[in-house]
Amino acid sequence: MSAGPPVTAGPSEVRLRPREDADLPARFARSAAVRDTGAGLTTGRFHDWLDERRRAGRFSVTPIPFDQLDGWSFAPDTGNLRHRSGRFFTVEGLHVTVDSGPYRDWQQPIIVQPEVGILGILAKEFDGVLHFLMQAKMEPGNPNLLQLSPTVQATRSNYTRVHQGAEVKYLEYFTDRSRARVLVDVLQSEHGSWFFHKANRNMIVETDQPVPLDDDFCWLTLGQLGELLRLDNVVNMDSRTVLACAPAGHPGHDGLLTDTELLSWFTAERSRHDVTSRLVPLGGIRDWIRGPSSIDHVRNWYFRVMAVAVQAGNREVPAWTQPLFQPIGTGVVALVLRRFAGVPHVLVHARVEGGFLDTVELGPTVQLTPAHHEHLRGPDRPAFLDLALRPDPTAIRYDAVHAEEGGRFHHAQSRYLIVEAGPEQAPTRPPAGFAWVTPAQLNLLVRHGRYVNVQARTLLSILNTRAAELL
Amino acid sequence: MSAGPPVTAGPSEVRLRPREDADLPARFARSAAVRDTGAGLTTGRFHDWLDERRRAGRFSVTPIPFDQLDGWSFAPDTGNLRHRSGRFFTVEGLHVTVDSGPYRDWQQPIIVQPEVGILGILAKEFDGVLHFLMQAKMEPGNPNLLQLSPTVQATRSNYTRVHQGAEVKYLEYFTDRSRARVLVDVLQSEHGSWFFHKANRNMIVETDQPVPLDDDFCWLTLGQLGELLRLDNVVNMDSRTVLACAPAGHPGHDGLLTDTELLSWFTAERSRHDVTSRLVPLGGIRDWIRGPSSIDHVRNWYFRVMAVAVQAGNREVPAWTQPLFQPIGTGVVALVLRRFAGVPHVLVHARVEGGFLDTVELGPTVQLTPAHHEHLRGPDRPAFLDLALRPDPTAIRYDAVHAEEGGRFHHAQSRYLIVEAGPEQAPTRPPAGFAWVTPAQLNLLVRHGRYVNVQARTLLSILNTRAAELL
Repeated sequence: MSAGPPVTAGPSEVRLRPREDADLPARFARSAAVRDTGAGLTTGRFHDWLDERRRAGRFSVTPIPFDQLDGWSFAPDTGNLRHRSGRFFTVEGLHVTVDSGPYRDWQQPIIVQPEVGILGILAKEFDGVLHFLMQAKMEPGNPNLLQLSPTVQATRSNYTRVHQGAEVKYLEYFTDRSRARVLVDVLQSEHGSWFFHKANRNMIVETDQPVPLDDDFCWLTLGQLGELLRLDNVVNMDSRTVLACAPAGHPGHDGLLTDTELLSWFTAERSRHDVTSRLVPLGGIRDWIRGPSSIDHVRNWYFRVMAVAVQAGNREVPAWTQPLFQPIGTGVVALVLRRFAGVPHVLVHARVEGGFLDTVELGPTVQLTPAHHEHLRGPDRPAFLDLALRPDPTAIRYDAVHAEEGGRFHHAQSRYLIVEAGPEQAPTRPPAGFAWVTPAQLNLLVRHGRYVNVQARTLLSILNTRAAELL
Repeated sequence: MSAGPPVTAGPSEVRLRPREDADLPARFARSAAVRDTGAGLTTGRFHDWLDERRRAGRFSVTPIPFDQLDGWSFAPDTGNLRHRSGRFFTVEGLHVTVDSGPYRDWQQPIIVQPEVGILGILAKEFDGVLHFLMQAKMEPGNPNLLQLSPTVQATRSNYTRVHQGAEVKYLEYFTDRSRARVLVDVLQSEHGSWFFHKANRNMIVETDQPVPLDDDFCWLTLGQLGELLRLDNVVNMDSRTVLACAPAGHPGHDGLLTDTELLSWFTAERSRHDVTSRLVPLGGIRDWIRGPSSIDHVRNWYFRVMAVAVQAGNREVPAWTQPLFQPIGTGVVALVLRRFAGVPHVLVHARVEGGFLDTVELGPTVQLTPAHHEHLRGPDRPAFLDLALRPDPTAIRYDAVHAEEGGRFHHAQSRYLIVEAGPEQAPTRPPAGFAWVTPAQLNLLVRHGRYVNVQARTLLSILNTRAAELL
């Protein structure tokens, strides 16, 4: 990957190619239409296979006190929690000030992991239909331990240097362009409330070479993934964010806003907020208390920092200990939907999160923990909260519980909803900070980094895979 | 601007619009074709007008020692240079480490100005041709003081709050959507070597209302601006960066790289660099010496921090003092050009600059100060340096001297070049960190922020205005 980009021919016989692959959206749409029987498992058989992988894996995760962490300790000077190798990640303090909302100045623990990882899905056509190579993978923070993950989840330590574990399977398809061509490759942010400036490469690459199939892997169509996304806690966050970046071919020549108006609105939102966020020593942050087994907020809100011991049979490293963030309470992440002139639009919110690199990104209409926001009244009460908390059952177009990244977060579950609304509930001219966009416009934005936050990308993956059918 | 984006109709009669304005590139191209006589001044008469504005303005700029700065002083604890109001900007220290190149760990003064400003050009059709309202504006750091600037250069203090100077003329066209529609609105970075994380909104808005013409303003076509860009030091940096963002309608269905390959290469470049850059107290930075009138590098390299007293008749505030950064030596900023299958491509370089928010942006092929790089040999010698320093005169497609932002930089001049090369000088498969892109691909990238750096945007403005004709 360190050489320049590939070219197809030598200087004397350079051939140009069309800049856009015009067939690609239709190929993704064709794969999304195949919902039951792919070239690999039927969607029905999939669950037996996943159970079998669970039995083969012999996993266990046990909470432990911090002093039983192996190689991890709190630095004497800063109180930051770090590994003696300097690798993996650190837990530090963050001080954030913002210029609006009910909470304007706070300190909190935050995960710092500057390395960019790869979240990559390998694609291949079988019988003319794109299939995606998915992995049954244990992550210690998943509520059910084993979920469906991308082909590859690799940190840069994994993919550029010798490390102590086994090799990352199928990594060569993402690093060697002679084996696969790139369909998607974009640097996307992760959770701005828990990570400081974190981003990962979201990749989909396509090969036409034979691919040996490992025990923990299976080929599924986009439609099969959509069926699985209708279930709670099957498709992990890393898979969802990659699928969100797929050129899914949503119809959408027209919109309530032109693309230029949408970009201009976003630029104004990013410009109008005064946000400062800087790292501070974890030892000194206010309102947080470090005990032997956890670091907790004084009101027991938000999340706790805890530690686990992990046993796993099918990971690169068979046993380890690590810190995890454990959110307090289940979140609600909802996208409000309306049809204008028959065209579905979703209501996105320009959100400030303290760990974002650049002030705001587009989030879902509602993204919060009800326990910490339900009591708020007046202008502090989040917009559209009641639509998300008490939706009319006939208006629910999607409803499932998903967990966030199980390698860093312990049982970080949210109820993901898509709720259709009328003009009286969700006005055509939305409040400040909100905009109506088409799924096709989200596809345009998500081709670039730091526009669409990770929770909104989960909801976009639901649209891309037709887990929710809007048309 | 705090309300949501505009919509054209109420809930009961919502009309959708095409997401893209398909005519816009052709309208810019038509304006670029009008090179001599617009609705305002002829290009020939323009210089008389500019001289007249220069005489009317009564400007003077005098270097002063730091202790004659009014309201500015070095903070006792940090040594940071700041204004007592807390407004404008501060000069602080920056500590940068990078993982490649001849210079891998350094400290330097840096300008910190978190506020996002507006650089905006008002457009209007006369006789069916787009014209742009340009301003003869004095900036203290311009070598000739008066240059052609955008309609509006406003900090957020200017445009959101009461401040002590006069109102910013024409600002209402950029803040009130009933007066003008947005053609371009994107947050772009500024100089990563001199600014910390700085970005400004680059806007072009179009009105069909009558516009009263102030003395310091004139209407010019894109082609007239292109003619003026062929001259040294007429069109200022702020104008150039806005013009770079124009949807200029470069032909380009095909390319050496597909758009997805280009984005993937950029993602890999942004991911592969380890860069840390953090603010430190200016008082403690190594290798820099503070004297009574300047802060200089020990080898007298890079730049100095100095101060000036300014008198001006046509500014919002008639007299003031301020610090400026003064680069040592004239820079060279060159874009190498090749034609593949007849289609012009330019060679961009994924550059690390310490003040970038996100690691790398695309710069020109060569961007440096010869005095500090010419002596380097072997792998440390910048690629394509000799093409930029000693170009074959018959290969030069563009050659003019321009200054950077005169509000912050004192006589920061560079020779901007476009040099055509053959395969033996600039191989089809370029070295690591370089890629061949078409002007149309640069137009795509520049629609989003933090892809194309400010020097490359000057060169893109030259292509957009046809100051250099490549076809």
